[in-house]
Amino acid sequence: MPDRLVLDYDAMLAPRLGRGIEPADIAALATRFSDIHEAVQHRYNAGDLAFLDLPAGGEVVEQIRTFAEGMGQAFDTIVVLGIGGSALGTIALRQALLRTGWNEAEAEAREFFPRLFVLDNVDPTTIAPLLDRLDLARTLFNVVSKSGSTAETLAQFLIVQQRLRAALGDEGWRGHFLFTTDPSSGPLRAIAEQDGIASLPVPPGVGGRFSVLSAVGLLPAALVGIDIDALLAGAAAMVQRCASAALHENPAGMFAALQYHAHERAGAPIHVMMPYTDRLAGVADWFRQLWAESLGKRVDTSGAVVHRGPTPVVALGATDQHSQVQLYMEGPFDKTITFLTVRSLPADLVIPHAFPDLDALAFLGGHSLGGLLEAERAATRSALTRAGRMNMTIQLPDIGAHSIGQLLMLLQLATVYAGGFYDVDPLDQPGVELGKRLTYGLLGRPGYEAPDDPAPDSRHVST
Amino acid sequence: MPDRLVLDYDAMLAPRLGRGIEPADIAALATRFSDIHEAVQHRYNAGDLAFLDLPAGGEVVEQIRTFAEGMGQAFDTIVVLGIGGSALGTIALRQALLRTGWNEAEAEAREFFPRLFVLDNVDPTTIAPLLDRLDLARTLFNVVSKSGSTAETLAQFLIVQQRLRAALGDEGWRGHFLFTTDPSSGPLRAIAEQDGIASLPVPPGVGGRFSVLSAVGLLPAALVGIDIDALLAGAAAMVQRCASAALHENPAGMFAALQYHAHERAGAPIHVMMPYTDRLAGVADWFRQLWAESLGKRVDTSGAVVHRGPTPVVALGATDQHSQVQLYMEGPFDKTITFLTVRSLPADLVIPHAFPDLDALAFLGGHSLGGLLEAERAATRSALTRAGRMNMTIQLPDIGAHSIGQLLMLLQLATVYAGGFYDVDPLDQPGVELGKRLTYGLLGRPGYEAPDDPAPDSRHVST
Repeated sequence: MPDRLVLDYDAMLAPRLGRGIEPADIAALATRFSDIHEAVQHRYNAGDLAFLDLPAGGEVVEQIRTFAEGMGQAFDTIVVLGIGGSALGTIALRQALLRTGWNEAEAEAREFFPRLFVLDNVDPTTIAPLLDRLDLARTLFNVVSKSGSTAETLAQFLIVQQRLRAALGDEGWRGHFLFTTDPSSGPLRAIAEQDGIASLPVPPGVGGRFSVLSAVGLLPAALVGIDIDALLAGAAAMVQRCASAALHENPAGMFAALQYHAHERAGAPIHVMMPYTDRLAGVADWFRQLWAESLGKRVDTSGAVVHRGPTPVVALGATDQHSQVQLYMEGPFDKTITFLTVRSLPADLVIPHAFPDLDALAFLGGHSLGGLLEAERAATRSALTRAGRMNMTIQLPDIGAHSIGQLLMLLQLATVYAGGFYDVDPLDQPGVELGKRLTYGLLGRPGYEAPDDPAPDSRHVST
Repeated sequence: MPDRLVLDYDAMLAPRLGRGIEPADIAALATRFSDIHEAVQHRYNAGDLAFLDLPAGGEVVEQIRTFAEGMGQAFDTIVVLGIGGSALGTIALRQALLRTGWNEAEAEAREFFPRLFVLDNVDPTTIAPLLDRLDLARTLFNVVSKSGSTAETLAQFLIVQQRLRAALGDEGWRGHFLFTTDPSSGPLRAIAEQDGIASLPVPPGVGGRFSVLSAVGLLPAALVGIDIDALLAGAAAMVQRCASAALHENPAGMFAALQYHAHERAGAPIHVMMPYTDRLAGVADWFRQLWAESLGKRVDTSGAVVHRGPTPVVALGATDQHSQVQLYMEGPFDKTITFLTVRSLPADLVIPHAFPDLDALAFLGGHSLGGLLEAERAATRSALTRAGRMNMTIQLPDIGAHSIGQLLMLLQLATVYAGGFYDVDPLDQPGVELGKRLTYGLLGRPGYEAPDDPAPDSRHVST
């Protein structure tokens, strides 16, 4: 049986830290958690939490496998057009599970799997050079939007479609698209049906930021050779592990309870996630969306105006020891730090012995870079703990698909539980609508008004 | 004369926002600023703020130019070994001023300038694949450490030196290194002298996070063809502009004053920097170090324990509208948002007209991606302002070296002024020492003790 992820929260607690959360608080959180666990079960029964069903795989996973092993073989480059929840999960999987420099490596080093690009912004200075160097005849564009109406993604689609038509003709372009979108509604679904574009569904009840284990993340993952069965099995193991309503047995519940309590009762609204390997930086970025968009809410579940929500922050070890750790050590006690670490990295390099007369170099000889990274993590944890800074550690057995599956599901479940503790709906995002409507208005979309903001007071502009 | 950058802070203020900072507060801040401006001048006179002299160029800039135009031509790849302040400025310059995908582009698209990699971590899973695909005979390694004793950088150096010796022999390796370090002390300086390695100085009085316009950032910039004269001229123009002690004439002072007041008097300790172009994401990361490490301090200038400091956060538009903006719109009123925008981008793409029957696509036709990005920024600014969220906008004339020079100097000066408002020393970083010492101890460096932390209480570990 593959190893399990470990959550060590000793340094969140007062016995270890000299401040922070008291063991008696945990007892109160545990009582509350059993109610939250039950409420989540009800919401699952109502069909709102369909992401919990994704690890079971099923027909769509078969379709994905069939495509990846069949038509997918025709392409040497995959480009995902998507933004937010349609991009962050795929970026996290790519960074964690493919070797660094994948897209620059020769085909043989990629075992002849395709390159994988994700276009997650509409910056022309990024998109133009990328499109210019693609061999369109060998490229598949996976257009990902649950609603099928995301302006950024449709703008990318229109530009790419024009280029493909010009290069491959009025028929040939169609085989270079695959849409991942709602099974029955939205503009992308309409185009798929009208133009006969291949498509995969995002299941109803799976929100964008909870979609990494649907076709949204699994199709690109399968195309580049990631073991999606192991990914799903890891996620399924975490769902199973979190079946318990007992807080001390449920790591996602404990993560949520402690972050919530640290925020609302111990003055720490800033939640830092700090992986100690480049490989997990994408997971931290993905979590940043999950935590911010799910918990940052104007109203609670009773409709009262509360303006609630923690602010997630991503830091990277060891790099950010030279950027953010000064603040974490000495600044306000307004943060929790969650280290992500790996029992063993998939590659290492030994530091040679040299310059024996120079102390600053001599002691490094014989250690490995992985050993240096791990020593820095342990030292930073120790220093932060001595400074009374709440921190916890999530340790993965390795950077394999099963471990990543466990981690992704842990954090998704923790987000839903945190919605319970914060008493907000973790599944909606009403605050982004106004900006969308104003964008439509500025671009002249019929039925939408442009903002008629007054010009800035010229006394408040330095020119 | 090149255009100046514009700071628009109208939406920080109560007349526009309905809450936030009152005009009367600005008057009080202006009074305080004139004292701070004078104190900064004193500190400059004492030699502590030598980064303000860097725009004047001088002998080192000549050396850089000579190297870049001479020996530097022999290399088709530059790899910077450095971390924190030795890496972030170079990454910011690369991302802003080179075309996206520079390292993957053919030599002709790079106008035959070299590739530029920055190794800013010690993760072997990143470093091993990169070293494996370099042509060492055509690669220059620029080892950057002001102290010359940074463990991460020296570990990278030892690994690279061994590879170069193996590939190029006991003599040949030396010509593939250039050290940027203290002019007279430290282990890298000792090796440079002992082994005859080319070197450039980091001037005394220039701290790591204020070193981007020294040889630290200028050498790699010059090697890849960035116009370092324009960069320095832009910075010099900003120094000149900030010679005024009148707050409303000094954009760096105004930036610092408003961020400080928003934090300490208006409840916003979280300072988001949100560029609306991928090109400026590196500048925001660089600023994140500057702001956090300079202002996050345990003691004030009188030695009183204060645990002070704002938390900088980087967001990227339009991407993070789909990740963080829900929280910024609806969550607590604990943030300021600073948009970075550009009057015109160096490249654009037109969105074609297509699918006239589908509203969600039809309205996009005829706009450009740059226009979409700008509409999204304007809409997000408008939405945040309507929601009463303090925000300001820094607009650059373009993404050229002169504009970037202005921006980098604006933010460095703002950081020093903010040190005055927060009443902390912006130039030190005592909080990182404990972690360094514990790392040394864990790795067995003589004279350092490993942490003897007790094992975590097993009741507080989920396994």
